[in-house]
Amino acid sequence: MRSLIDILDLSVEEIDALISDAESIIADPGRYADCCRGKQLAALFFEPSTRTRLSFESAMLALGGQVLSVTGAGMSSVSKGESIADTIKTVSCYADIIAMRHPQDGAALVAANSTQLPVINAGDGGHNHPTQTLADLLTIHREKGRLGHLAVGVCGDLKYGRTVHSLIAAMSRYPGIRFVLISPEALRVPDYVTDGMNRMGIPYTQTASLENALPDLDILYMTRIQRERFFDPALYEALKDSYILTADKMRLARPDMCVMHPLPRVNEISVAVDSDPRACYFKQMFNGKMMRMALIRKLLSDPATPAPRADLYHHLRCMNPRCVCQTEQELQPAFFRVPGDKEIYRCLYCEMQAR
Amino acid sequence: MRSLIDILDLSVEEIDALISDAESIIADPGRYADCCRGKQLAALFFEPSTRTRLSFESAMLALGGQVLSVTGAGMSSVSKGESIADTIKTVSCYADIIAMRHPQDGAALVAANSTQLPVINAGDGGHNHPTQTLADLLTIHREKGRLGHLAVGVCGDLKYGRTVHSLIAAMSRYPGIRFVLISPEALRVPDYVTDGMNRMGIPYTQTASLENALPDLDILYMTRIQRERFFDPALYEALKDSYILTADKMRLARPDMCVMHPLPRVNEISVAVDSDPRACYFKQMFNGKMMRMALIRKLLSDPATPAPRADLYHHLRCMNPRCVCQTEQELQPAFFRVPGDKEIYRCLYCEMQAR
Amino acid sequence: MRSLIDILDLSVEEIDALISDAESIIADPGRYADCCRGKQLAALFFEPSTRTRLSFESAMLALGGQVLSVTGAGMSSVSKGESIADTIKTVSCYADIIAMRHPQDGAALVAANSTQLPVINAGDGGHNHPTQTLADLLTIHREKGRLGHLAVGVCGDLKYGRTVHSLIAAMSRYPGIRFVLISPEALRVPDYVTDGMNRMGIPYTQTASLENALPDLDILYMTRIQRERFFDPALYEALKDSYILTADKMRLARPDMCVMHPLPRVNEISVAVDSDPRACYFKQMFNGKMMRMALIRKLLSDPATPAPRADLYHHLRCMNPRCVCQTEQELQPAFFRVPGDKEIYRCLYCEMQAR
Repeated sequence: MRSLIDILDLSVEEIDALISDAESIIADPGRYADCCRGKQLAALFFEPSTRTRLSFESAMLALGGQVLSVTGAGMSSVSKGESIADTIKTVSCYADIIAMRHPQDGAALVAANSTQLPVINAGDGGHNHPTQTLADLLTIHREKGRLGHLAVGVCGDLKYGRTVHSLIAAMSRYPGIRFVLISPEALRVPDYVTDGMNRMGIPYTQTASLENALPDLDILYMTRIQRERFFDPALYEALKDSYILTADKMRLARPDMCVMHPLPRVNEISVAVDSDPRACYFKQMFNGKMMRMALIRKLLSDPATPAPRADLYHHLRCMNPRCVCQTEQELQPAFFRVPGDKEIYRCLYCEMQAR
Repeated sequence: MRSLIDILDLSVEEIDALISDAESIIADPGRYADCCRGKQLAALFFEPSTRTRLSFESAMLALGGQVLSVTGAGMSSVSKGESIADTIKTVSCYADIIAMRHPQDGAALVAANSTQLPVINAGDGGHNHPTQTLADLLTIHREKGRLGHLAVGVCGDLKYGRTVHSLIAAMSRYPGIRFVLISPEALRVPDYVTDGMNRMGIPYTQTASLENALPDLDILYMTRIQRERFFDPALYEALKDSYILTADKMRLARPDMCVMHPLPRVNEISVAVDSDPRACYFKQMFNGKMMRMALIRKLLSDPATPAPRADLYHHLRCMNPRCVCQTEQELQPAFFRVPGDKEIYRCLYCEMQAR
Repeated sequence: MRSLIDILDLSVEEIDALISDAESIIADPGRYADCCRGKQLAALFFEPSTRTRLSFESAMLALGGQVLSVTGAGMSSVSKGESIADTIKTVSCYADIIAMRHPQDGAALVAANSTQLPVINAGDGGHNHPTQTLADLLTIHREKGRLGHLAVGVCGDLKYGRTVHSLIAAMSRYPGIRFVLISPEALRVPDYVTDGMNRMGIPYTQTASLENALPDLDILYMTRIQRERFFDPALYEALKDSYILTADKMRLARPDMCVMHPLPRVNEISVAVDSDPRACYFKQMFNGKMMRMALIRKLLSDPATPAPRADLYHHLRCMNPRCVCQTEQELQPAFFRVPGDKEIYRCLYCEMQAR
């Protein structure tokens, strides 16, 4: 492990080790206050995400390291037409580790392939955001004492919610997980998510009613429903209140249920729920910093090289307009086969299926 | 004392202690170079104010601490509709102390009420900016050796100049203070300022002539007059030169008068005055950093909780369009009574009088 | 030496000493990890240049110092009409050394004249960028073992390329240098550059053919040709490919030639050349950081005051619209005479010849 691009780059054992490291840091942060002394993290935020940036920067500073920060429209050289690879090669002359947020799917992989430094994907378009999922897993582990044998409800916009897809993928690898997918008809999870659960034999139910689902859950993961996702505004108006978590609805839930949310919220969880001991969304923020401390420390001390890539195919063209391969200079298209299905090729960068 | 929202949150004794601390830091900065080691200051500038931001950041770094910096349009999550309270709760997971600048009146109080961390108000709209006043007080103390028994001239835009109102409020608590209020008719101090001085028995005079006022002053506090404040541009043109401090006018002043200005200046003090030993406005900048060092150190080491609030009333509505209570999600209106006048209620957040 | 505004502020001996210092830092960076402990660098980037900013910040952090960073449209006070001198005087109350990038020619000199702190010019308009040239010189020294007795090709836009003009000026002071100036007719070096070489007796040739020039070079310094520089787009289209360095063209070059580029590149060097051991442009980035470490350390420890200025003349007016003297408040015009030609006066700030 040298870079972290996708949560599935990490084995279950590696995730468990990171969680254990993070819990050690929480127990005795002073022991880690100098472990990255003399190291520099470049936080390259080519797309704004202030809370993620602050979480990375705060984590690095708490380890005794230093931070180089790029925000806003990104590197000024990018506006002159510089490629991601050149930007990363330059930053690699200055820093020891890179956390990058970028609006294009696959940008983080291009970055990782351009440098010897560890690269942490802090969000590449609508594609991956693995440190969010690590924060979620640490939160569940700290609240419930385990990552398996849980009834996990996910609620809201399950169609476009990248956070939810990653959480489902990551938790599906633990035993005894059952998902309850709570959303309006129009915002159900995409087929590839249910296909994945079916293939792995993970039980799940789909429902439109948060109230019906609530009594049965160990975890409730809330996300926001955006008005723009609906063709019919009247439908949005009719539905929206049923997906707002209120103190009233919380009476239906178990006394030890854990409410999570990736934040920011707008109004999908009432402020009145904040004082409920089951509300864990601000703990998630704290856990995110702790997980990033564990991860940065791990990547800076781990000499291991990444596993060799699977066979790649170069005869296809990616059709995803947001994929980094559409713009990156002299980048060869590359596709991999989905294991168990020889007919499906996916873009190495954005994972969209080739047609 | 845990947060600093308004200069009047500090007693005269607390201000004197901070001044004494700042003077100790100036005398031997090396002694304080590690006293905030391992701590992080979040400098949240939701509205640009580069010099104030740099002053806070430089102060924290000089204490051995570290800085998380947010500038420009603020947190990206805010543009998604996040409340101030949620932003502050998130940042509280990362930092140890918060300095916040925000365009809305009362935003700093909302922030302080949302967190266990100390919050320093670095300017909330046109309302308060207490560390500016602390810098002014330290400057006067260092230049004159005392904070009482002084003739203090304030010159320029006294109607909209928040800095001047705070300075008058803070200095009115020291014995033997006399104010000379120098401004065009149209830009005199608001009634609530003169009412305050009358109530406390503070002598003051109002004049339109800087030249007449000069010979009599220990302190001259200059501020800028903006063209936009005048309905009649011809009036502005006729007046503006009389409020520009030149080397010529300085000949009318005492040899130990102290010239102050909150900066930035445009042309209200001639560059030729800079080399006059009585010019103290760049010293004010230095003193501002020293005062912020003293304040950050104090707040990070002080376990005291804030005094209980006075009785609050919730039956009124604030009419100030710039008050944070107009937009902050699920924030209950709150008003307090002005002591000695049972008929007047003021908004807890922006202090505007309810009607 | 207290400030660095122009590469020619440094004698050959001072440059050699800085190169030697930088090579010591490269050999044993740990020895320097604390040598600026307790010091603060203000990185004032009033114009975006992310890679230069990161290079300075990373250099200061690697020396154990701290960084105050201003990016984007600059200080908010500047938009209120504050002069450069006032901004610098304020920042001087916070920091120990200043690196400044500014869009106006001569801005760095105004800054240096406003403060007792060392100022490093990180680019003032199209005028000077001396730390770029220092990085170039260190790269040549490390790659070739010497700075004299070299055939130096410079290729691309030689008319507007400030980097190239500085490099020619700096290298002309070493023995045995020969220049090959490779550009389209329309983008040849300005007369003042060839005049300088003629005056100093430096041999040079001018050619339009990169392929013809290649076999003979020790150094090839590439720059970008921008479409906007051509009146006739058809001419640009006809020419552009001949100034793109490809793996094919590299076969014509010596096995020990060194390819340089100030970066960012767009397509003027093919990505395929990156893996050629003669490609040195990313090494230049690394060397830039090392040189800035040597320079910051030197300026912070050097008590020497600058040499007295040559005689100045104040009876002329600068006609350069981008010169800082057009806007800086109460700045007296100043001109110097070019040695050896009593008829020529140049503006002290932008060096443009008075008419």
